[in-house]
Amino acid sequence: MSIEVQKSGSVGLVTPQRAVFDEPLPLDSGRVLPSYELVFETYGTLNATASNAVLICHALSGDHHAAGFHQETDRKPGWWDSAIGPGKPIDTERFFVVCLNNLGGCKGSTGPLSVDPVSGQPYGPDFPIVTVRDWVISQHRLMQRLHIARWAAVIGGSLGGMQVLQWSISYPEAIAHAVVVAAAPKLSAENIAFNEVARQAIVTDPEFHGGRYAAHGTLPRRGLMLARMLGHITYLSDDAMRAKFGRELRAGKIQYSFDVEFQVESYLRYQGTSFVDRFDANTYLLMTKALDYFDPARETGDDLSQALAQANAKFLVISFTSDWRFAPDRSREIVQALLAAGKSVSYAEVDSNHGHDAFLMNIPYYHQLLAGYLRRVADEGGAA
Amino acid sequence: MSIEVQKSGSVGLVTPQRAVFDEPLPLDSGRVLPSYELVFETYGTLNATASNAVLICHALSGDHHAAGFHQETDRKPGWWDSAIGPGKPIDTERFFVVCLNNLGGCKGSTGPLSVDPVSGQPYGPDFPIVTVRDWVISQHRLMQRLHIARWAAVIGGSLGGMQVLQWSISYPEAIAHAVVVAAAPKLSAENIAFNEVARQAIVTDPEFHGGRYAAHGTLPRRGLMLARMLGHITYLSDDAMRAKFGRELRAGKIQYSFDVEFQVESYLRYQGTSFVDRFDANTYLLMTKALDYFDPARETGDDLSQALAQANAKFLVISFTSDWRFAPDRSREIVQALLAAGKSVSYAEVDSNHGHDAFLMNIPYYHQLLAGYLRRVADEGGAA
Repeated sequence: MSIEVQKSGSVGLVTPQRAVFDEPLPLDSGRVLPSYELVFETYGTLNATASNAVLICHALSGDHHAAGFHQETDRKPGWWDSAIGPGKPIDTERFFVVCLNNLGGCKGSTGPLSVDPVSGQPYGPDFPIVTVRDWVISQHRLMQRLHIARWAAVIGGSLGGMQVLQWSISYPEAIAHAVVVAAAPKLSAENIAFNEVARQAIVTDPEFHGGRYAAHGTLPRRGLMLARMLGHITYLSDDAMRAKFGRELRAGKIQYSFDVEFQVESYLRYQGTSFVDRFDANTYLLMTKALDYFDPARETGDDLSQALAQANAKFLVISFTSDWRFAPDRSREIVQALLAAGKSVSYAEVDSNHGHDAFLMNIPYYHQLLAGYLRRVADEGGAA
Repeated sequence: MSIEVQKSGSVGLVTPQRAVFDEPLPLDSGRVLPSYELVFETYGTLNATASNAVLICHALSGDHHAAGFHQETDRKPGWWDSAIGPGKPIDTERFFVVCLNNLGGCKGSTGPLSVDPVSGQPYGPDFPIVTVRDWVISQHRLMQRLHIARWAAVIGGSLGGMQVLQWSISYPEAIAHAVVVAAAPKLSAENIAFNEVARQAIVTDPEFHGGRYAAHGTLPRRGLMLARMLGHITYLSDDAMRAKFGRELRAGKIQYSFDVEFQVESYLRYQGTSFVDRFDANTYLLMTKALDYFDPARETGDDLSQALAQANAKFLVISFTSDWRFAPDRSREIVQALLAAGKSVSYAEVDSNHGHDAFLMNIPYYHQLLAGYLRRVADEGGAA
């Protein structure tokens, strides 16, 4: 019995692919990546006119493994398996779906764990700071490599949604539809503040060694754990935490000790410690900086509608009521700027008490919305 | 020229006092403090009938120094000088104001920095976990020592407001008015989660040494700094941060580095590092645990109105619109429970964009409200 049969709606077993780019990539920071590799996955089949391709952009701790399984024994599928697969909102029976690990990542694309061709040593903390615009340029090169001239849609949540916005600005002719989920046009001071505490947790960890922990045979486990614990608080809502944990005591009664007392503490410690085994601290730092710097209206005098004036895509913007990391107000800023620029935009505020994390969940109204929109995209674009 | 003349409305120079208690104090945890000292300050004059005494309860990082100056050269007055002094809302021309450092504190009352009379060594991490109820019992003993039978009012913000609630329950005859500012009847799971990240930052700092950092000649500076940075985010509002910092760049333009880039980062790092020099990590841990454990309705089947049924005080409850640490909803829970229990309660929601920190600020409507209420308290209580 194959995994496809066992797991209905799954893309089944997938194998990551690699693309090597020898052309140097000039970055926003002024530095240049002499060459780089991108690891990516695809689901579904590219049609003859290459008109059914969809790009998925990942968020802070995401990667190229968005759907399906790498091995039959995998406990969990890719990070957005709830939305990607045959018959799912991002329907792999109609679309050719591409998802890559961004530059600076730690899951196979060139990043701090890769060897710097110039020095022959791992980049580590010397990997250049990359921006959302840098990512989009690198993604565009992958697009050309795959012989895709225009994405039927570029789709992303959170930091992924920022990449979608940047695509619509950087390559207006290369993107038919932009689906921006649980995003913001730029971080608020509070968002930056949370990122800064996470970064300080990592860089002040004595085992960080200025980012050269690998050379020292250490890992900044404590710092990365704290960063992830803090992140998790901002991904959930107050309501979601209340519903999930309330003030439930782990041992049934109060212990009056500094051990785990409440269930929510146990959950956070688990989230923090398990993250350390699957993520790189230097990458975490880079991802938070990409978030901080994203601000497409910086070059247009804080006028987002002017920044989006050149976009040709049609937009779907989705927010979630209990998301306080990127609240609905932030999505409405995007919508208003698009409307002011005369763009085609649909907007939906999805009722959910799951906080920012909602964008990864199978919330019926949200998935119906996404499915309905993408069905029209497929119909108009000549998808399979 | 004396400091009283220079600084209008100030209580001027004040000298902390000490009270030693040799009677053992049994604690909620089951442990017993064999003896203890409390350091406190008083402002104003106790009248002949001792009917004009007001107790101020401090919040997480507060202490006994609520108003005035210790030396003429002090740069800053006590932490609530905006509200306490001649002609101020807590008017020292009418009230005799008492403020003490709570047990477990690090500013002079018995706490982790004190010597354990049994072992002859500093308590450090062996200082027992103390609860809000333990504090109120210790404060009641100080009250008796000062020959005060009944407080005209007990007043506190945040964790201080929780002590006020506990006073109304533990000693209903000893408190005429309860002023509960920016508080909550108990922490939410999200509140506990933030405390837990702060605690983990401290206890995982390699220089924490299980709390015995003094014996090791170290200080968990990084952990305490992170805890304070995180705390500061929750004390401010998103709006307050936007108004205060926006996305202002420290160097005027983007540096593409991990140094401070945005003003908000600079502010947080300063708040974090300066806190380390004035606060003890073991005390910080104790204070957050007192917050986590406070839940007067635990013993009445989660029925707060039943927990408050025995209260005899009249209540003034104040919240601030942009406070998301203890949002107005949490104050309304207190108000509803008091109303359900048939108590006298006034409630005001003060419009402010300063977040939780608003309770320490001179916001005109807030101070007028407090002044008006306390004027009536003074008139009815026969204050000077």
